[in-house]
Order: sequence, then structure tokens, then C-alpha cells
Amino acid sequence: MSAVNLAEKLALFSEHWSPKIVGAFNGHDIMVVKVEGEFVWHSHPDTDDLFLVLDGEIDIEMRDETVHLKAGEFYVVPAGVEHKPVAKAEAHVMIIEPSGTPNTGDAETAVHKDQI
Amino acid sequence: MSAVNLAEKLALFSEHWSPKIVGAFNGHDIMVVKVEGEFVWHSHPDTDDLFLVLDGEIDIEMRDETVHLKAGEFYVVPAGVEHKPVAKAEAHVMIIEPSGTPNTGDAETAVHKDQI
Repeated sequence: MSAVNLAEKLALFSEHWSPKIVGAFNGHDIMVVKVEGEFVWHSHPDTDDLFLVLDGEIDIEMRDETVHLKAGEFYVVPAGVEHKPVAKAEAHVMIIEPSGTPNTGDAETAVHKDQI
Repeated sequence: MSAVNLAEKLALFSEHWSPKIVGAFNGHDIMVVKVEGEFVWHSHPDTDDLFLVLDGEIDIEMRDETVHLKAGEFYVVPAGVEHKPVAKAEAHVMIIEPSGTPNTGDAETAVHKDQI
């Protein structure tokens, strides 16, 4: 493995809500994703979910509160907590989750995560 | 927990090589650290070590190669690999390691990590 430049990785794709794996760490995938619009409500029963905004702004809606994140800010959604990421305009986010975690919380609807 | 602004956390302290805990994720500490100069050679036998540079530049010297990182770049030092972080000028870094990991690889010489 060599140094990973997050902006260079983000320049390699354009689709939204399709996390790309850019590194591995203690059984977790380090991913970058472009988001815009509303994702689905979901939760991950067995893992926390780390969102670090690299560019733009997102809201992480939860049933009882909404956390607003801008570039340089992170939030950890605790395991089991239902959440829905929303971005009014395109935003770039780094996500860390255990390898194999379905992005929708459901293996049947999850996207395949390519390594780039 | 609420959103964590990394720059705001970094503005709260000035000392070098003293990681501050700013979040928790799956049994790991999310930390920010200011570095300048040379750290000690060390390794972590049981965990990978994630370095994401937020501001400035660092070298991660290993016995057989050196990885140069600038802002927006990360590197994962694999478990057990000896490394020595070096920064010619002050740099700001986000680090993720399992809670309780000694920063020097040795509990006797490790700094105490405060939560901020």
C-alpha cells in the first residue's frame, strides 16, 4: 500500500451513493463516496458508522435529531441507530465500516463496493 | 455525541506528539495530533495505524521505505511494522487506533491521551 490521496480517488468516479474502497484498516474498509439527494433510512445493527465530510455539507437525519456536517467535520452513528444521509448539493465523504457492511443495512439492496 | 469539527479541536491545544481523543468508533479512538520534528521508532503488534493528514506534510519512515503524506492523504501502517513519523514543520493529523493503544508502542513510555 502507498499513500492514498482522497481527492484523486474521488476524481475517478461520478456516481452518487456508491462507496469506493480506498484502503483497509483493522478489518474495516476505508471508503470515499459522492452523495447528493436523499439516501434510504437504514441502520447497521453490529457496527458504528463513521462519516467524515471532505467537501460540501450533509445532514445525517436520525429519528430524534439531525446532525449537520460540513467539510472537516465527522460524526459517528452508533450501531443500531436508524439514519438517513441527505445532501442538498453534491458532497464528498469518507466512510469507515467493517469490510462487507451493506451500505443500505440490507445485503439484498446494498450496492457492490469496488476498490479503486 | 454531536458533530466534531477537527480544526476546532486542534485549536484547543498546542503541544506536539500528544494525541487528543475526539471521538469513539467500534472500540477505536479517533484522535487529532499536532506533530513537528521526529517521533520515536515503534510498532503496534496487534493493530494497524491509520494516519490522515489534515494540514501540512509528514513522512512516515519505515525500515524499508518512507511514505510522504500531505493534507488530504492517508496511510495505514500495518500491524507490527516499525515506523517513525517525522514532520519538518508542524502538521496536523487524524489518527485512529484501538482505545488504549500506546502511542509509542510501549505502555511505559506512552503519553496519556486526554479527551477534548
